[in-house]
Amino acid sequence: MTRRPGSRTRVQVHVVAGDAVRRRADELATEEPLEIRLVASGAATVPGAASGAATHKTVAVTMRTPGHDFELAAGFLFTEGIVPSGAAIRRMTYCVDPGVDAAQQYNIVNVELARSALPDLPALERHFFTSSACGVCGKASLEAMRMRGSGPAAPGPAVPAHVLAMLPERLQAAQGIFQATGGLHAAALFDASGELIALREDVGRHNALDKLIGWAVLNGRAPLRDHLVMVSGRASFELLQKTLAAQAPIFCAVSAPSSLAVQVATEFGMTLIGFLRGGRFNVYAGVERIQTAVGASRV
Amino acid sequence: MTRRPGSRTRVQVHVVAGDAVRRRADELATEEPLEIRLVASGAATVPGAASGAATHKTVAVTMRTPGHDFELAAGFLFTEGIVPSGAAIRRMTYCVDPGVDAAQQYNIVNVELARSALPDLPALERHFFTSSACGVCGKASLEAMRMRGSGPAAPGPAVPAHVLAMLPERLQAAQGIFQATGGLHAAALFDASGELIALREDVGRHNALDKLIGWAVLNGRAPLRDHLVMVSGRASFELLQKTLAAQAPIFCAVSAPSSLAVQVATEFGMTLIGFLRGGRFNVYAGVERIQTAVGASRV
Repeated sequence: MTRRPGSRTRVQVHVVAGDAVRRRADELATEEPLEIRLVASGAATVPGAASGAATHKTVAVTMRTPGHDFELAAGFLFTEGIVPSGAAIRRMTYCVDPGVDAAQQYNIVNVELARSALPDLPALERHFFTSSACGVCGKASLEAMRMRGSGPAAPGPAVPAHVLAMLPERLQAAQGIFQATGGLHAAALFDASGELIALREDVGRHNALDKLIGWAVLNGRAPLRDHLVMVSGRASFELLQKTLAAQAPIFCAVSAPSSLAVQVATEFGMTLIGFLRGGRFNVYAGVERIQTAVGASRV
Repeated sequence: MTRRPGSRTRVQVHVVAGDAVRRRADELATEEPLEIRLVASGAATVPGAASGAATHKTVAVTMRTPGHDFELAAGFLFTEGIVPSGAAIRRMTYCVDPGVDAAQQYNIVNVELARSALPDLPALERHFFTSSACGVCGKASLEAMRMRGSGPAAPGPAVPAHVLAMLPERLQAAQGIFQATGGLHAAALFDASGELIALREDVGRHNALDKLIGWAVLNGRAPLRDHLVMVSGRASFELLQKTLAAQAPIFCAVSAPSSLAVQVATEFGMTLIGFLRGGRFNVYAGVERIQTAVGASRV
């Protein structure tokens, strides 16, 4: 029986303060690679796989914190437009291929798709390799999202400003691993009343969001039309793109957004909130979904 | 003449605090894709390029903050083991291909290599696509580094604890864009006396380090055997791997390291410092390079 890697790793550390040095135990966020493989249900070979007899196709290797690996795989495949829904996924398993070293078993997830749901794999490879089929600039990146089927965000809920102001505290309270290690990004799902629905953590910020959305996709909670997504760090193009794929209309970040994150939100009618901390926040797009006591007309 | 994208973007924002809402201008870190292309010097075609008549090969598209783009390209190619040195790069230019839209010109860098320095491009593609040739676990990732030629770190300097304690303040003082936008990661190079040699910023943390190392590579400053690298955020596997490629023996992070970052440092004899802030820090590996007034024997 292989030991499954944990989400925390214990190490010994020297703590230096001024001239004082002491040794103590410390806990770190575990970082290990995860390989996501597509497997055709009941098929001996996967069409388009590199070698003739291949039974799987690797679509990504990501450095992640172990835990919620199936959600990570499902969320990645869904937000990248590779699988259309949780229903397309027949089954997920860790790799039990006899050719695979025991230490690696829990770092490979096989995602079994119905044959009809299998994407065109050679095209997929090109997509991952360059991502630049339609040009290389912010505007072209938005066009690429539209071509992949991203529509405008749902109207979604209107959220009182005082509810938004409470979210950072609730996020932090739920961030279990972070409190121990200080080393993880968090992505959380809230409903419009500010209730925490789910939270996922990872050393990679994209992975934390993929795990969260994967949870929703696998549990029949997607699309997330009435929900808010919040992250512990900054707002980038990719995080907005993933959130839009899950159809959540409101994205909140504890820190700053990038210029292209604001462009995605503006272009697709999302609400983008940044610097949400200390009871205040900045609204970069979609201010019509924010309610203040003074009334929407003030906003 | 195309306008070159700037590193900051001006936007209008609604600031919400309690029930008060006001509008003001804000500055964000610009995020735009950058495509890095390899071009053979004087060659009509690049061996291994996808189409028969191709004159270039795309090796990466990364979301970055415009500025220091040639350094980013050089640093990426060097730290990923694709070019062996700055001398292998004949010339870098923005794309002036007539088929490329003017808005995209400054988002494509052509890196011209001597024919003899051109890597095996089809193999390269597989490398980027899976990165998993030798297995998928932390140990295999370290083996892959060794196979790509990473040796043990140089002995490097011994650094007094009080010098390390000063670095965060110096890093922050030099972080120009961050102070305006709050949205950028920084990577800085210091000498053993704590003098700041160079600093680069980017929305992507890998990019900030690639720009810094690219600067060193293009200016004949690499290998960085007597230097410290410091980042504004966390320490991950990839950041340590890139730092080792540039042969800097000491890596400092304002925040937490991951488990695999500690493994890289331990395995390759690097010094890894985390939570460097407020005059104190944790040493996760290579404590022999830290001097305290009480003497090395105390450490």
